[in-house]
Amino acid sequence: MKPSLVKGTRDFGPEQMRKRHFIFDTIRSTFRRFGFQPLETPSMENLTTLTGKYGDEGDQLLFKILNSGEFAATLTDADLQTAQQPGGSKKLIPQLAEKGLRYDLTVPFARYVVMNRNALALPFKRYQMQPVWRADRPQRGRYREFYQCDADVVGTDSLLCEAEIVLMIHEVFRNLGITDFTLKINNRKILAGIAEAIGVPGQEATLSVAIDKLDKIGQEKVLDELRERGFSDDALSQLEPLFASAPEGGILATLERLRQWLAASETAQAGLAELEQMLTLVQQYGLSGSALHVEIDPTLARGLSYYTGAIFEVKANNVSIGSVSGGGRYDNLTGAFGMPGLSGVGISFGVDRIYDVMDELNLFPEGAGQITRVLLVPFDEPARAVALPLLRTLREADVAAEMYPDLTKVKKMLDYANAKSIPFVVLIGSEEVQTGLLSLKNMITGEQQKLRAEDVLTTVSA
Amino acid sequence: MKPSLVKGTRDFGPEQMRKRHFIFDTIRSTFRRFGFQPLETPSMENLTTLTGKYGDEGDQLLFKILNSGEFAATLTDADLQTAQQPGGSKKLIPQLAEKGLRYDLTVPFARYVVMNRNALALPFKRYQMQPVWRADRPQRGRYREFYQCDADVVGTDSLLCEAEIVLMIHEVFRNLGITDFTLKINNRKILAGIAEAIGVPGQEATLSVAIDKLDKIGQEKVLDELRERGFSDDALSQLEPLFASAPEGGILATLERLRQWLAASETAQAGLAELEQMLTLVQQYGLSGSALHVEIDPTLARGLSYYTGAIFEVKANNVSIGSVSGGGRYDNLTGAFGMPGLSGVGISFGVDRIYDVMDELNLFPEGAGQITRVLLVPFDEPARAVALPLLRTLREADVAAEMYPDLTKVKKMLDYANAKSIPFVVLIGSEEVQTGLLSLKNMITGEQQKLRAEDVLTTVSA
Repeated sequence: MKPSLVKGTRDFGPEQMRKRHFIFDTIRSTFRRFGFQPLETPSMENLTTLTGKYGDEGDQLLFKILNSGEFAATLTDADLQTAQQPGGSKKLIPQLAEKGLRYDLTVPFARYVVMNRNALALPFKRYQMQPVWRADRPQRGRYREFYQCDADVVGTDSLLCEAEIVLMIHEVFRNLGITDFTLKINNRKILAGIAEAIGVPGQEATLSVAIDKLDKIGQEKVLDELRERGFSDDALSQLEPLFASAPEGGILATLERLRQWLAASETAQAGLAELEQMLTLVQQYGLSGSALHVEIDPTLARGLSYYTGAIFEVKANNVSIGSVSGGGRYDNLTGAFGMPGLSGVGISFGVDRIYDVMDELNLFPEGAGQITRVLLVPFDEPARAVALPLLRTLREADVAAEMYPDLTKVKKMLDYANAKSIPFVVLIGSEEVQTGLLSLKNMITGEQQKLRAEDVLTTVSA
Repeated sequence: MKPSLVKGTRDFGPEQMRKRHFIFDTIRSTFRRFGFQPLETPSMENLTTLTGKYGDEGDQLLFKILNSGEFAATLTDADLQTAQQPGGSKKLIPQLAEKGLRYDLTVPFARYVVMNRNALALPFKRYQMQPVWRADRPQRGRYREFYQCDADVVGTDSLLCEAEIVLMIHEVFRNLGITDFTLKINNRKILAGIAEAIGVPGQEATLSVAIDKLDKIGQEKVLDELRERGFSDDALSQLEPLFASAPEGGILATLERLRQWLAASETAQAGLAELEQMLTLVQQYGLSGSALHVEIDPTLARGLSYYTGAIFEVKANNVSIGSVSGGGRYDNLTGAFGMPGLSGVGISFGVDRIYDVMDELNLFPEGAGQITRVLLVPFDEPARAVALPLLRTLREADVAAEMYPDLTKVKKMLDYANAKSIPFVVLIGSEEVQTGLLSLKNMITGEQQKLRAEDVLTTVSA
């Protein structure tokens, strides 16, 4: 039997894991430096918790877990007939499955908050880094199992939280070495204001869905779609400033243009004021000028209709990989679980896409996460007795070290060191045992020197 | 709708996560110091990969994932009739599910090795720390989702690997602070030798299954079971030395007694010699005397019949919690996937039980993994402008710091600091803004002092 992987899933071998650890560690340490606390929720949730939270398409993409025991005993002839009709299988799901796999980290977080409402100190800042699963058709860059890394604050509507997200994004990408990125920011209130300004108040959701496709289908097709959805030519002509290229003069010029265009909408002005306050906090923190990678984009909508304030999206420049991070403010995270009115704001980092960006731009630091630093290579039993205390000394100094387990050809042992990218090898033969001088080989330079055991540690730690 | 957890699964809130991280980090850093490299495999495997690897009971405990799309369209009247018979549901599984959730880390590891056989440098040392799932009846200490932390070496039969496992176990438990534990060691060859010695050669598997229950059911019932399975009274009477308490004199005395009892069995002598060589390596490394927590236990079998050499099991003393770690040598890890003859040896740490032991014995270090070190508490907008650059300074020095997001009552902000166990709070009001002297409050001692912003970092880092 030739084994294979489930389509859309991946093994991560040592080389990939080292790179992934670098990304996870960078994101985690930033989350923690900003005072976010870890949370983990189970991989499985009751389907009642998951269903209806991600739209019809999302419900279909949930992985369902077959009930245990006599799960099919209650199936009837009528069920069988149902199943044989097109689309009939899904009607049998309630009988066959009561559990599903986590689809994102947001719904389980909301469930956690509701179940622990009395014990949680608000505002609650949590981060969560776990895999999620989607029964999607696998394709390049789209997997059925992938990690999300989320940080959210709930229980406050302070704009400081938005400012902190802007700061965290900058810190994460700087620490990853992705220096050329753009953080696009918008605000749901600006989108609502645009709907007001063009004479279709309250229709910003429809507007957003179409505008969200701007990058993919272009201005003309966006307008066609809106026309089909009943927007008048007059309304559409007033959308013109939305498609104009950003003015010279950066953020301030963009803010000014929007303020003038949307002067008649109080909602838009409120959104613009929020944006401005947030940016003031960011500047007071000390992030400004060329270090600030923010762009205000009034077309940014990110599909998800639950954002009520700020909307964020990050793209790496010079690579054709979609957004690597996104988030925003929402006002009703826990409403579906009977706890309305809890405001929050969050950000999600997509590890798989960040990995692809860093791989394509060759940004992983040399030797990042290389594990073993020293390989001990004894030629015989007496040499082992010399090697073992050295192995202990190295590890006690927190130097990752191993001893080649078999007594075999030296070439084979050196090949092993090379295959594992181990930078130092200590060769111990009968001469070394007699003289007490060990041969330390630098596998990168090829250089070899004779040292006493007690000097090996100093040299390999340098 | 009141949300709930799937039975047998758990949320891990910040407090538990901090403790779990302490365990994970300790195990991971030991694995890495010993030169093991990380591997991660997908949560889902094809059922063809999983089925038949864990016995009938294991097959039943696999969580199966319902196929997507028209999964029920091929069900027939005959299937329906099958399903309505006792035990009939499971016969429908092949039609309804082709994927299952990982049941342990060993089978996916074997699959990975076989699929990457040409690329892997042998010996291959990998560690893997991921959740596994079992559709077991939940009960105290038994969960449907739990973590395993495994380290294995494959591609060598060197006894150095066994010695390294003994060393790793000691290092992990020492670093966790679990100083009172017992590492029981046995060898399959000793069990086989016992079978030879009592005149039932080749029957060590049957013998093991019964002996494995010694702790639970006692000597008499073990003998009853063996009698039922056809062992003669003569054979059973020769088992007597197995049940005798360990002799005074520790490991050496136990080895000597076994050597005499099993003098007639070459297999047993080979097993004893392996044990002795392994212990010599451990001693040469520098682990001996009272630091060595090893006990030789010829009754140790660990149920799993695939061990072919050393068998390990760790229990914490003074708590009634089962084994916290176990493993051994196997000679046919990858045989089921068409790659016979690959020998390996591994160890698995059970995080959930280790957690329970440490909780019961109160071994988690005070403040282990406490996140935020400093909370900034500005009383108004001007105070915020003073606080923000300080926030930046702290974080740039890798001090986890946050600013309370809302302008509210001081008491509420201090309550927040206490709820999150934040040790330092910086209070900034109008006086502080004017004088430039900030109030630093130590939340543990209650002490308060006035400092310039640039001195806060020094004090909180001390």
